[in-house]
Amino acid sequence: MRCVFPPYQTEPRRVRCVHLLKYEGVSTMEFPFNNFIDLKSVHRLQKLAKTPYSLAGTDTLPPERIAGFQASSCGFNLLYATQRLDEQVLTELQNLADEARLTDQFMAMKAGQIMNRIIGQESEDRQVLHTACRDLFSETPRAPEATAQAKEQMTRLQTFLTEVDNGTITNEQGQPFTSMVQVGIGGSDLGPRALCLGLKGFHLPGRRAEFIANVDPDDAAAVLAGLDLSTTLVNVVSKSGTTLETLTNEQLVRAALKDAGLNPARHILAVTGKGSPMDDPEKYLASFYMYDYIGGRYSATSMVGGVTLGFVLGYDNFLEILRGAGEMDRAAENPSIRKNLPLLMAMLGIWNHNFLGHATLAVLPYSQALLRFPAHLQQCDMESNGKQTSRLGQPVEWKTGPIVWGEPGTNGQHAFYQLLHQGSEIVPVEFIGFRTSQFQSDITVQGTTSQQKLLANMLAQSLAMAQGREHDNPNKRFAGNRPNSVLLADRLTPYAMGALLALYENRIAFQGFCWNINSFDQEGVQLGKILADRILEEMASGSSGQGKSTAQDSPESALLRAAGLD
Amino acid sequence: MRCVFPPYQTEPRRVRCVHLLKYEGVSTMEFPFNNFIDLKSVHRLQKLAKTPYSLAGTDTLPPERIAGFQASSCGFNLLYATQRLDEQVLTELQNLADEARLTDQFMAMKAGQIMNRIIGQESEDRQVLHTACRDLFSETPRAPEATAQAKEQMTRLQTFLTEVDNGTITNEQGQPFTSMVQVGIGGSDLGPRALCLGLKGFHLPGRRAEFIANVDPDDAAAVLAGLDLSTTLVNVVSKSGTTLETLTNEQLVRAALKDAGLNPARHILAVTGKGSPMDDPEKYLASFYMYDYIGGRYSATSMVGGVTLGFVLGYDNFLEILRGAGEMDRAAENPSIRKNLPLLMAMLGIWNHNFLGHATLAVLPYSQALLRFPAHLQQCDMESNGKQTSRLGQPVEWKTGPIVWGEPGTNGQHAFYQLLHQGSEIVPVEFIGFRTSQFQSDITVQGTTSQQKLLANMLAQSLAMAQGREHDNPNKRFAGNRPNSVLLADRLTPYAMGALLALYENRIAFQGFCWNINSFDQEGVQLGKILADRILEEMASGSSGQGKSTAQDSPESALLRAAGLD
Repeated sequence: MRCVFPPYQTEPRRVRCVHLLKYEGVSTMEFPFNNFIDLKSVHRLQKLAKTPYSLAGTDTLPPERIAGFQASSCGFNLLYATQRLDEQVLTELQNLADEARLTDQFMAMKAGQIMNRIIGQESEDRQVLHTACRDLFSETPRAPEATAQAKEQMTRLQTFLTEVDNGTITNEQGQPFTSMVQVGIGGSDLGPRALCLGLKGFHLPGRRAEFIANVDPDDAAAVLAGLDLSTTLVNVVSKSGTTLETLTNEQLVRAALKDAGLNPARHILAVTGKGSPMDDPEKYLASFYMYDYIGGRYSATSMVGGVTLGFVLGYDNFLEILRGAGEMDRAAENPSIRKNLPLLMAMLGIWNHNFLGHATLAVLPYSQALLRFPAHLQQCDMESNGKQTSRLGQPVEWKTGPIVWGEPGTNGQHAFYQLLHQGSEIVPVEFIGFRTSQFQSDITVQGTTSQQKLLANMLAQSLAMAQGREHDNPNKRFAGNRPNSVLLADRLTPYAMGALLALYENRIAFQGFCWNINSFDQEGVQLGKILADRILEEMASGSSGQGKSTAQDSPESALLRAAGLD
Repeated sequence: MRCVFPPYQTEPRRVRCVHLLKYEGVSTMEFPFNNFIDLKSVHRLQKLAKTPYSLAGTDTLPPERIAGFQASSCGFNLLYATQRLDEQVLTELQNLADEARLTDQFMAMKAGQIMNRIIGQESEDRQVLHTACRDLFSETPRAPEATAQAKEQMTRLQTFLTEVDNGTITNEQGQPFTSMVQVGIGGSDLGPRALCLGLKGFHLPGRRAEFIANVDPDDAAAVLAGLDLSTTLVNVVSKSGTTLETLTNEQLVRAALKDAGLNPARHILAVTGKGSPMDDPEKYLASFYMYDYIGGRYSATSMVGGVTLGFVLGYDNFLEILRGAGEMDRAAENPSIRKNLPLLMAMLGIWNHNFLGHATLAVLPYSQALLRFPAHLQQCDMESNGKQTSRLGQPVEWKTGPIVWGEPGTNGQHAFYQLLHQGSEIVPVEFIGFRTSQFQSDITVQGTTSQQKLLANMLAQSLAMAQGREHDNPNKRFAGNRPNSVLLADRLTPYAMGALLALYENRIAFQGFCWNINSFDQEGVQLGKILADRILEEMASGSSGQGKSTAQDSPESALLRAAGLD
């Protein structure tokens, strides 16, 4: 690491750190991690943002604009004529992507460079290689070693699932296992859960998956109450093997199995990091590994998602998820924003967030199957990019990640869309839809199918938000100029689900690169853990006042008293 | 209606409309609907907001502050020392509540005044009487006529449920009904669904409730696939009797019943407005009414929630929900913000949103049972207060409702809390917790129960967000000053669930009154419906180009083509 002026900056304002990066195992390049506000295109975009394209009115969306403002990758089309931008902004967003060398950084990530780090500060200093889990289909994977490790785990999973299928692995009475409960939280829960729900139409007959995450004992109690434990496998997932909630729930499930007269070692699987406290195959029916170069929130395509998804969808369908994700990862290597959906969506998001000033992003799938996909994205995006420190170890002076939220349409139309259309906060929207339904069981009412009604509503919302409507009655007026995009694919298959997941994962990574933050750590969750331990200690030692005169005056004690918990 | 200067404004800046309101059937009062920015306390609060109380650091939360900044109603305690305010701000928030006459307006609403209106414009012009549904326990209900109607429906519900229980009402084979599917959307879905999940520990053994909302055919397909239709009741809920999604799903379920060789008239119930197209008792096994003075998003305590909740929880537990809600409605009549939780929370929200400038509000229940409660609040709040027109028919010049979102803790801690602690957007938080669990099935690990871990984490997050932490490593620094409150009760019982629901409903109403908007209409959802109909027409008529040269150039047609749906 050495400090120089980046060559392309003619008027350097401060000394900057340059980080040496090597990628594809071949070329060595000097990699300037430039601050967002120091990029020239950022300043040009700031000027353009003073007069963004107006979508409001009746002549703002001519057919050529709608036809021209679209892009596609891996079977997904993005229609973005309803964003507040023109060709000039688009060109400048391409310049921004080029200037920040976003696809170079992405390639470096995929090739195994240490992208999880803060220069000059103690940090995790790890590779970021979730992409290697799905780089299984090429003879020249970008990170051969990590992909070899992924393949090894996949082979072990395939063997295990075959043995469950063919009756080699059964319960003690020789009955087949029909249910799997995944015990995990955060990254070990949200992604696998979202995908499991997202592909309900592809579940194997007679197979079922449930999830326990919360340390709230009611979570486990409600799930366990609905299961026949004798034919249930329990999949405990924690990369560190030390996650409080997961270890507690593992104990709770072990106790429930014993209470039911069952042997936990015949029912419980583990997915954990090699060498973690949970890496003890003796205690488990089977163990699978994940590696420290895969962050929890990016782990759905590793064994963290693989075991449960493989059980409920079948191994081949899980492989299809990986194929979709892998192909989207390849598409994300293209430096042209018009040909790279993750990159384009990253840039559109930055335009809305940093330049037009909108604090949140709503992801609204017109697909009931994607019910929990926004919750997964909320995690993946906000934990990755809700950051305050640049990769140069300085406080950021620009906006980083937005607040991400959403619910499926058309449900949301009958809920919060009132605010989207007429509220005082403007919310950029990403709609997601599929041309045909998953179950393909439909009904025609008033001349159209339910699927047609669903899609018509999605497109109508996109137009209504963009164009608005004049009206004499101010309460029936719609100001329009609510920026949005529509993302479309043919059907929510395992392949499409994998591609969609990778599309968002890569969009998030591109934005983090652009903001020059480390999207792969999560220091912001540490303080709460420390304080929780302190409060638990007081709870465990009984009355918070007992013989602890200093502690008694602490906010922790005072809060416990006020809460009636001392 | 006549125009005067409100008597208490010494320097009137513009002529204002005054609206005559009568309430409690006795007193007539001139009711000034003053604009938010014209209130004197608003201007004083604006000044105070320049130097809000700083929570960051170690000496900011002395025990007396924590002990002093709390309030309670109906078994709920609110700890709000971790908000950015002091006694002076609190006094001024009381002044704001007084000046805007918030409890007077609330009393007027409960007494049946026409609060759903915009003066001088075509508007719904209706009473707002969801509170009457739960004003069943007093001899002097605030709106006797509406309460009498509610009691009539309750009696009919009780009879119906008794007949289901005692075998008078069965399926054609004489078997008891064990499942109920509620078909509804928006207000006819989110509230009842949130309450049903919220009280899972109180479900009657052998009873089950499911919900179908989305017009996405995969929603119904997935739900129906998991049910034995022969023992299933279907509860179709639509106030207007014209909701597209609900009518379509009713058809779909009718077809599924017929396909299973069952007679739909023996399985399907209706909850609808008197005189609606669905008000046709011949077609249904039983019909229940709701009234036009109850808005969909406020209807969970009417028959909209009552039928399914009564079926799955038992009539007495539903009555307990109403008792909790009714008592919170009474608590909301108290003009002192220190003794009225809904009013206090309304004022704290306005402080954070209008004065400290935070665009969103996160509701984070430390209770897995409240999994979908934030989604219900999101609807109730954003559809009520995401408005642009004052009740005087003028565009508002101040911020109205925030974006409301949230997920249960501790799950969220492993998801989006990174941004809450270290992101560039500041998100005010409302934590919700209960001292004991619902199922009361728990485990002790490392000296504490899961319930203790849950609560310790909630309190720890509250402190961490408020106080932050200094650190040499900028990436491990926490700026603090993230405002939040903790709402606590003993246990999530039906009574507590009802009180919590009414607490939020009333907070939302108070904020709407304060912003001088109509919280009870939803004109913002209309434009999307019109455009969807137009697009559906094109879909139904086949290729969008066929013989429609003008339509071909419309954005609707161009979008259909670009989407590959023409």
